[in-house]
Amino acid sequence: MASKIIIGVMGPGEGATPEQNELAYDMGRAIAAEGWAVLTGGRAFGVMDAAMKGAKEKDGLTIGILPLNNEKGSSPYADIKIVTGIGASRNQINILTSNVIVVIGMSSGTASEVSLAIKADKRIILLQQDELTSQFFHKVGSHRVVETETIEQTLDYIKKFLAVNR
Amino acid sequence: MASKIIIGVMGPGEGATPEQNELAYDMGRAIAAEGWAVLTGGRAFGVMDAAMKGAKEKDGLTIGILPLNNEKGSSPYADIKIVTGIGASRNQINILTSNVIVVIGMSSGTASEVSLAIKADKRIILLQQDELTSQFFHKVGSHRVVETETIEQTLDYIKKFLAVNR
Amino acid sequence: MASKIIIGVMGPGEGATPEQNELAYDMGRAIAAEGWAVLTGGRAFGVMDAAMKGAKEKDGLTIGILPLNNEKGSSPYADIKIVTGIGASRNQINILTSNVIVVIGMSSGTASEVSLAIKADKRIILLQQDELTSQFFHKVGSHRVVETETIEQTLDYIKKFLAVNR
Amino acid sequence: MASKIIIGVMGPGEGATPEQNELAYDMGRAIAAEGWAVLTGGRAFGVMDAAMKGAKEKDGLTIGILPLNNEKGSSPYADIKIVTGIGASRNQINILTSNVIVVIGMSSGTASEVSLAIKADKRIILLQQDELTSQFFHKVGSHRVVETETIEQTLDYIKKFLAVNR
Repeated sequence: MASKIIIGVMGPGEGATPEQNELAYDMGRAIAAEGWAVLTGGRAFGVMDAAMKGAKEKDGLTIGILPLNNEKGSSPYADIKIVTGIGASRNQINILTSNVIVVIGMSSGTASEVSLAIKADKRIILLQQDELTSQFFHKVGSHRVVETETIEQTLDYIKKFLAVNR
Repeated sequence: MASKIIIGVMGPGEGATPEQNELAYDMGRAIAAEGWAVLTGGRAFGVMDAAMKGAKEKDGLTIGILPLNNEKGSSPYADIKIVTGIGASRNQINILTSNVIVVIGMSSGTASEVSLAIKADKRIILLQQDELTSQFFHKVGSHRVVETETIEQTLDYIKKFLAVNR
Repeated sequence: MASKIIIGVMGPGEGATPEQNELAYDMGRAIAAEGWAVLTGGRAFGVMDAAMKGAKEKDGLTIGILPLNNEKGSSPYADIKIVTGIGASRNQINILTSNVIVVIGMSSGTASEVSLAIKADKRIILLQQDELTSQFFHKVGSHRVVETETIEQTLDYIKKFLAVNR
Repeated sequence: MASKIIIGVMGPGEGATPEQNELAYDMGRAIAAEGWAVLTGGRAFGVMDAAMKGAKEKDGLTIGILPLNNEKGSSPYADIKIVTGIGASRNQINILTSNVIVVIGMSSGTASEVSLAIKADKRIILLQQDELTSQFFHKVGSHRVVETETIEQTLDYIKKFLAVNR
């Protein structure tokens, strides 16, 4: 029996731009359409919320890894709410649980997730990131980090990775 | 949109008796038949494994909260494997994420979960537990702890609890 | 270079009785007089606070492992405040970091610590505990759990354990 | 009674260069000479090990926050070994427990610590970092991040910060 393939979508909460939220929404839809689950930090804001909203529109399964010790502030689009109670230490769980990580937008929390993903030897897709971010994470993470510009490129990369590693 | 109702089934891994595994299997089936998800510590042993195996036979959704930083030793019956990397500290996540906790058999890990559940003000059902265990957890947890002898009594209690608290 | 020997003193916070606090205070003094550090859950209440207060009167070193993501509610008698931000999951850190654990009074949090200590194969001293508590933890923890009635017996046990295991 | 002032020194383990280790050693000495404790990730490698070695030569207090559930691979220069068992999730504890964080060298683990420190609204000193690293963390962390080139500048900044915030 195969467990669910889980794609993490990481990005800012309150600080996300409308464009990043729209991109996250489209990414969530596309992931769900492939039959994969969407995992986020689970809060009712920004990239997390938008990616799970998109996934739900395609009847996808959504998993929110919540920082608090209750469901306060969690996204209504999370089917499964993992209540960790360990604050930002839960970022490591986001990473370890995801087969591949897609990064939309940037914030300190997001940067910690990309860094932890590199350390855990995960594959990280920087979707529409700026040059500075891309250069920094390539320096720290080398081949574990790739850049994409579109949803389609991102799906292609995930499929190739899963074909080899799953 | 309502998130999934999650029932935690806690009990020994390697040290579980055949009777406890059978009871856990039946409990997992019964939980899945109600449409609820089964959550366990996710390992391929004992009560955890049996409860999720039972749930899968009724097409239930199963969630395993894994202690290691990879999937080694995890149950093949876990649909969603949350890879925590935090060892026994993940017992607190098992508790916080479950709406109600059913306890089958006893071990040090299980005792820590019952204790943490009491501290988190959760409701804990001691299913077919001995007198000593029951007395001890009543002393520590008072009204948060109830005893049941059958799967049916356990389901009844969960339904009454959810009717009021959900 | 030898790292510090650390003795954990575990027990209720707000729910501790005056007698338990007094015993914890005396225990903290006695541990410090041996040159060992006292580790507790670090809060400004009950057994935690009293044990560290006692230790400070003998110029001992005190370590508080705090549950919140800041120092709020922490004991003024903690020299070193480890700010974990992981809530009750920090109970596991209390246990793993202590060479030996002394338990005074009982609560759900304390019961989780004794249980986790058994699971981690630590040695646990139940100081002036009642019969029910003693019986339950012997059932779960067998030889890892011992009972003592006095500070002196407790020190003797710790010394014998450290002589063999350190 | 005042708890100990704790300065975190963060940097690569095995991947540290000889120059970074030397700088960490000098930084550890300088921190200890001020009477502050040095906190690191506690492993027997690189910047962590060197900073604590330096501190011990000035009779400083050293705290290692260990990732594993035992002391394996920990630095002999750590006086107090906090055994967390939570892997890279302990990076958040490193940050929350430090009054100020000094960063020497860069790696994925270190980048996660800087990011988490920004998120926790801590002050981070980038000591002798390259332009790319500096620019990236300024973008993510704005005023929380400062650059220094020497041990003296670093001490000055810490003193000014503590004068206002302690």
